[in-house]
Amino acid sequence: MPDTGQVVSNTGGRDGAEAPAGLEGVIVAHTQIGDVRGLEGFYHYRQYDAIELNRRRTLEDVWFLLFRGHLPDRAERAGFQREIAEHRVLPGDLVAFLRTLAATDPFDPMTALRTAISFQAQRAGLRSWLDISADELYGNAMLVSAQTPTLLAALYRLRQGHEPVAPDPDLPAAANFLYQLSGERPDPQHAWALERYLISTIDHGFNSSTFTARVIASTGADLGAAVVGAIGALSGPLHGGAPGRVLEMLDDIGSPDRAEAWVRDKVGRGGRIMGFGHRVYKGKDPRSALLREVAASLGGPTAEFAMAVEDTIVAVLAEAKPGRALNANVEFYAGVVMAGCGIPRDMFTPTFASSRVIGWCAHVLEQVSGNRLIRPAARYDGKPPPEPVPATD
Amino acid sequence: MPDTGQVVSNTGGRDGAEAPAGLEGVIVAHTQIGDVRGLEGFYHYRQYDAIELNRRRTLEDVWFLLFRGHLPDRAERAGFQREIAEHRVLPGDLVAFLRTLAATDPFDPMTALRTAISFQAQRAGLRSWLDISADELYGNAMLVSAQTPTLLAALYRLRQGHEPVAPDPDLPAAANFLYQLSGERPDPQHAWALERYLISTIDHGFNSSTFTARVIASTGADLGAAVVGAIGALSGPLHGGAPGRVLEMLDDIGSPDRAEAWVRDKVGRGGRIMGFGHRVYKGKDPRSALLREVAASLGGPTAEFAMAVEDTIVAVLAEAKPGRALNANVEFYAGVVMAGCGIPRDMFTPTFASSRVIGWCAHVLEQVSGNRLIRPAARYDGKPPPEPVPATD
Repeated sequence: MPDTGQVVSNTGGRDGAEAPAGLEGVIVAHTQIGDVRGLEGFYHYRQYDAIELNRRRTLEDVWFLLFRGHLPDRAERAGFQREIAEHRVLPGDLVAFLRTLAATDPFDPMTALRTAISFQAQRAGLRSWLDISADELYGNAMLVSAQTPTLLAALYRLRQGHEPVAPDPDLPAAANFLYQLSGERPDPQHAWALERYLISTIDHGFNSSTFTARVIASTGADLGAAVVGAIGALSGPLHGGAPGRVLEMLDDIGSPDRAEAWVRDKVGRGGRIMGFGHRVYKGKDPRSALLREVAASLGGPTAEFAMAVEDTIVAVLAEAKPGRALNANVEFYAGVVMAGCGIPRDMFTPTFASSRVIGWCAHVLEQVSGNRLIRPAARYDGKPPPEPVPATD
Repeated sequence: MPDTGQVVSNTGGRDGAEAPAGLEGVIVAHTQIGDVRGLEGFYHYRQYDAIELNRRRTLEDVWFLLFRGHLPDRAERAGFQREIAEHRVLPGDLVAFLRTLAATDPFDPMTALRTAISFQAQRAGLRSWLDISADELYGNAMLVSAQTPTLLAALYRLRQGHEPVAPDPDLPAAANFLYQLSGERPDPQHAWALERYLISTIDHGFNSSTFTARVIASTGADLGAAVVGAIGALSGPLHGGAPGRVLEMLDDIGSPDRAEAWVRDKVGRGGRIMGFGHRVYKGKDPRSALLREVAASLGGPTAEFAMAVEDTIVAVLAEAKPGRALNANVEFYAGVVMAGCGIPRDMFTPTFASSRVIGWCAHVLEQVSGNRLIRPAARYDGKPPPEPVPATD
């Protein structure tokens, strides 16, 4: 589809201009949840700079901000933490269900999460938002967003042959996720670093999974349907599926002195460099800058190595693809930070899902508040109809 | 969002025009699968009038046409039927899984189908289309589309306390679905009528569920993820969730002589008449015209009653909402035809899904052939950022 930068009104066989390929830059809705200013390298949640929020607030505070529209006071915070802690506990029949998923080959945690949330939406009786109150829908959003990390940790442990670990109601969300994954009290610095990663990825404009959630919600479907669809979209390597590949790339490069030759060779053969470039950020990705700092705080050889490789890749790409301004995106340091916190590689994208689900649910809550069915059109460019239907052979 | 009929290029904080609300009429892709000419009351699959195809071909022939791009010859037809028949057979572990879903309260067949397809995608090892061949992806599409009716029939029977019925490899798809639902050889006229309904609903432009499937596929996700998301979108009452409500409305009206007063009262109180009006068809919906004929062939009091009520509603709406040209849509006769074939009301939307899944899969196959990530933008209209983050309370 030609990138005309124009659009369109009306189907009905009439000609019209078209949306740019992939709907790039097409404004499909209004939102008060946040925005990305790609050219400025800036993004925000509600009216707050997302990076400043990240430095000054907890994951729970930002979660509350997205669901409720304002930062919590002390009483609201305490109530919200209690709600989250209650939803973390998995009922027995759900654990039995997870056992089946974990025992089935081949196992992929995103696929299993998708199935688990779909089943959880059944057993918890999630229904069309057209048929329930706003309070009930909010309760659905709390259930699904609070339970996602617990489901993931339980699936991971069951697949490893271990029993799930009961959540600790006194631990904040990020620390509790590490605890439920490993069964050990997390290093406070790891909990701090993971919390920074999780806050940084809660929401990011109308990315494909968020848009999927809103399209599904626009039909009147239940919140579970929207989240299940969004998990599917996030599982695609072109959206959420690449953070593990950055570490594989670092493994492949091997040492900082080999980075330049490796990148030149890759670019020369037309290969794709993982963790660089972004549809919306044409300059710096503020999330990668934050996570570089977090990685540096965690320290260790991988973090040092990653920073050196980033600098080399940026320099080579600037020379090889002038004018493209290809910079590290959120995925480049995501894997470094998660690995530094002790999260296994196959849990990187699921961990991303465990924070983005908060954004999806916030968008569902917003979509239904002024809903219109999302139903676009397409241009048919096949053989002209109607051609007579030939007799059956 | 104002319906400006214009759009947009580029985010980055710059102002631009916007897409119309709900992306109505916005051309978001090219397709060779088919199109809807709303103003002409015409739709087509590939280059053939969908109504003419419906009168002259089988469901399997149209399925082949959408997947492969041409109508099958005799050998292709035989091979395709064999493929479908093989995929209909459910492996034992999958039946055990369906047993769990059917035994869980509350039960909803669309939710259970969503979970079942998600699990089936895991156990069959469906992977990102970026990592498999076109032939493998085609195999995934055959598996999921052929297995959907079998999964639905098995879920229905299990929920009723009956054992699933093994498919009959010699029966065409529509007849086999009735057989697997009831356990009895279907009346040939019922099989014929259901086949007409199923063919009429395989595909219909960029409706919300088809669009959902394409957005998810655009991220590189597996075909199962795309179909699971689409099932969720179709489960919304504003998209696929209304055919049962038309029969409820007919029940509520009670008899033809009460139709006019009932409709006038409903319209007067601002209520919604089920089964009337369509986003794309501004005149007649060709599917409802076809299904009215099919309902008339089936005969019986419900069909007679529905036709009389349709005529009354059209007349009252023309008077009450002049210029709107509100006509019966596909849902009005869908329920009448399905009920006439012996399908229970709570299986109406799932039966719709059993044909629309063919369209979803065809769109996934097309999306990946010239993929670009679908990622739109939104306009932020909340409080202006950045506002300083207040200290924690």
